[in-house]
Amino acid sequence: MATITKVSPLAPASFPELPAIDGVRFATVEAGVRYQGRTDVMLAVLDPGTSVAGVFTRSATRAAPVLDCQEKIGGPSDGPAAILVNSGNANAFTGHYGQTSVAEVTQAVSKATGVPVERVFTSSTGVIGEPLPHDRIISQLEALKSGLSRHAIKDAARAIMTTDTFPKGASAQVEIGGKTVSIAGIAKGSGMIAPDMATMLVYIFTDARVEQSALQEMLSAQTDRTFNCITVDSDTSTSDTLLLCATGASGVDATANAAFAEALEGVMLDLAQQVVRDGEGATKFVEIRVTGAASDADAKTHGLAIANSPLVKTAIAGEDPNWGRIVMAIGKSGAAADRDKLSISFGDILVAENGWVSPNYREEDAAEYMKGQDLVIAVDLGLGEGKSTVWTCDLTHGYIEINADYRS
Amino acid sequence: MATITKVSPLAPASFPELPAIDGVRFATVEAGVRYQGRTDVMLAVLDPGTSVAGVFTRSATRAAPVLDCQEKIGGPSDGPAAILVNSGNANAFTGHYGQTSVAEVTQAVSKATGVPVERVFTSSTGVIGEPLPHDRIISQLEALKSGLSRHAIKDAARAIMTTDTFPKGASAQVEIGGKTVSIAGIAKGSGMIAPDMATMLVYIFTDARVEQSALQEMLSAQTDRTFNCITVDSDTSTSDTLLLCATGASGVDATANAAFAEALEGVMLDLAQQVVRDGEGATKFVEIRVTGAASDADAKTHGLAIANSPLVKTAIAGEDPNWGRIVMAIGKSGAAADRDKLSISFGDILVAENGWVSPNYREEDAAEYMKGQDLVIAVDLGLGEGKSTVWTCDLTHGYIEINADYRS
Repeated sequence: MATITKVSPLAPASFPELPAIDGVRFATVEAGVRYQGRTDVMLAVLDPGTSVAGVFTRSATRAAPVLDCQEKIGGPSDGPAAILVNSGNANAFTGHYGQTSVAEVTQAVSKATGVPVERVFTSSTGVIGEPLPHDRIISQLEALKSGLSRHAIKDAARAIMTTDTFPKGASAQVEIGGKTVSIAGIAKGSGMIAPDMATMLVYIFTDARVEQSALQEMLSAQTDRTFNCITVDSDTSTSDTLLLCATGASGVDATANAAFAEALEGVMLDLAQQVVRDGEGATKFVEIRVTGAASDADAKTHGLAIANSPLVKTAIAGEDPNWGRIVMAIGKSGAAADRDKLSISFGDILVAENGWVSPNYREEDAAEYMKGQDLVIAVDLGLGEGKSTVWTCDLTHGYIEINADYRS
Repeated sequence: MATITKVSPLAPASFPELPAIDGVRFATVEAGVRYQGRTDVMLAVLDPGTSVAGVFTRSATRAAPVLDCQEKIGGPSDGPAAILVNSGNANAFTGHYGQTSVAEVTQAVSKATGVPVERVFTSSTGVIGEPLPHDRIISQLEALKSGLSRHAIKDAARAIMTTDTFPKGASAQVEIGGKTVSIAGIAKGSGMIAPDMATMLVYIFTDARVEQSALQEMLSAQTDRTFNCITVDSDTSTSDTLLLCATGASGVDATANAAFAEALEGVMLDLAQQVVRDGEGATKFVEIRVTGAASDADAKTHGLAIANSPLVKTAIAGEDPNWGRIVMAIGKSGAAADRDKLSISFGDILVAENGWVSPNYREEDAAEYMKGQDLVIAVDLGLGEGKSTVWTCDLTHGYIEINADYRS
């Protein structure tokens, strides 16, 4: 696989300080699943009373751990819970052997931690189609168990990385009835990133108490506005998983609390944008704001058509204000558009309106704007009230380098 | 714009010998629309009695010449016809000015050639959003008219090129009732190539006689199996146009003739594949054969998902038999798939079956196969009788080079 030597130029300055979440402990280990000389397995153990909600890839070729998680989510929610994640091997398209690996690992975790097997969730990320050497993971469970700590969430963020160039974390705290509730999350993902849940592993923890079905409902709605609005390359992984765990250890019930929902959505959006910022080969972070569409769904269709267009993405890489390619992408998206009602801006620069280039547009202004690292492309369809914002990155030689030589 | 210095490694050895088609004459000229030192306008004049059928981009932001052609196709089909095409400027997203340009050009062609304006078809290809300097074209009409020749189809193929690295032509001859009918076509296109008609200019001529509505029906059906089955980058042009002209000069009626239909489809497929072979930056020509799908439509959805996946395309560029990415693309396509019924082959090498790697698969065999220039990826879904074949190319540094610097 390609060696990743450089941190993305779009990475945050440093990993954020994350608050410890009461009711959850983490441990990591070097199990040598595939990588050498780095941690590649993380275990999180959650106290009794934790609600767990999840969203998963919609791929028709989902990996065995995803199918196992999907069966378990929404099941009995008493007792403790555990999450075990390995990097280096996706345990995807591994037939019956893949299911056996999941069964072996979840049973071993259950035995080592005392968590009932129906509350043990696993994820695997890395190469597709190779058998998971699950014995290497199982042999490390005692070491993982004895290493559990409230303060190891940053180590967990590192252990789940594959082609990521930086670990991803985000947090929020919110006051509810005079008490503080905390949320902290980690994510991995940098390629094979596109909506439909899609394309990464994310684990978010809170000490709030939220009943499972309410937690699931909140998570699903917010995923549509966060993780389902990002795309690196339009490809969707077979393994993507987001688990949200509410331990309830704060004693504060946050069910249907608007401030909590807002804080959670902020954490999700922060993590989603960090995934884009680690997009394979990315040198530009691009926000695409679509307004005036016939519906919100149409706005998202247009936004993703722009975000996924190789011609738009290479123009951005080349710092070329090639708005004609934006017009092309809108035209091909399949959603409603009227050429003569469309307007397009780069940042504050109005580029096109009324079916043609804006009379005051000067290409040198836009060319200067495109040299920035964080770009906003705004499109107004002039048709209705539908809107959506999506985030993406550019398509560069770096993407080709990483992906023409990942596996060998 | 990027200077294209090298001919695609996938190009045919030479431009084919094309038969002259009775009833059509061509001329080309250097009008300096945008390019210097090369021809950039072609005129074809067709004798009275020619049927003209057309298919066009489905883009919602179609260019002015496309809208004009669409209005005219299916109209009166007596009298002569003319086709005028310029390269260098797409006259797309140019507002009312764009419509004015089309009106000026078509009226001037009508005046110069005596062809009624409702039978004058135009296409423009090149940069989007800049006004077409139509006076430069109009001032060359007399020169074009005096240069008309039955034998200039190869010059016409050259004049319509943009980022193409070679001119594209194909032909067929078929015996009907003891007489020979000829078909000859030319095409341009190398980027912004994806189905939904899509993405290129194609002009096909035959001396057969076919009534207009029958010609249109044949063309539309065959487009679905040829030009709508190719993709370079999933992007769809605002300008794409295919015109099929039957002059009838042979005196042979080919309406509903199966041999003629087959020969025409062969010409269309040949031209479509040449467009893929000139895909921007392409180093591999890839045929994706999907069988066993729940329906033909599902098979095409899977085929295009594979063909458009940046991760599949970069793996092919890297000569990496990364079949896990094929599984991923099938999974994300949205069409029906069952992980455990799927089989995947590279050429004759069975790679995956029954939800996992095939027991006899040796990666070194597949790695050797991937070094070839023409590759076949075969996928059987194991679900039904649906099938489709699509053609694409790999995604390389060359694509990034061409497209990160096209406009400036």
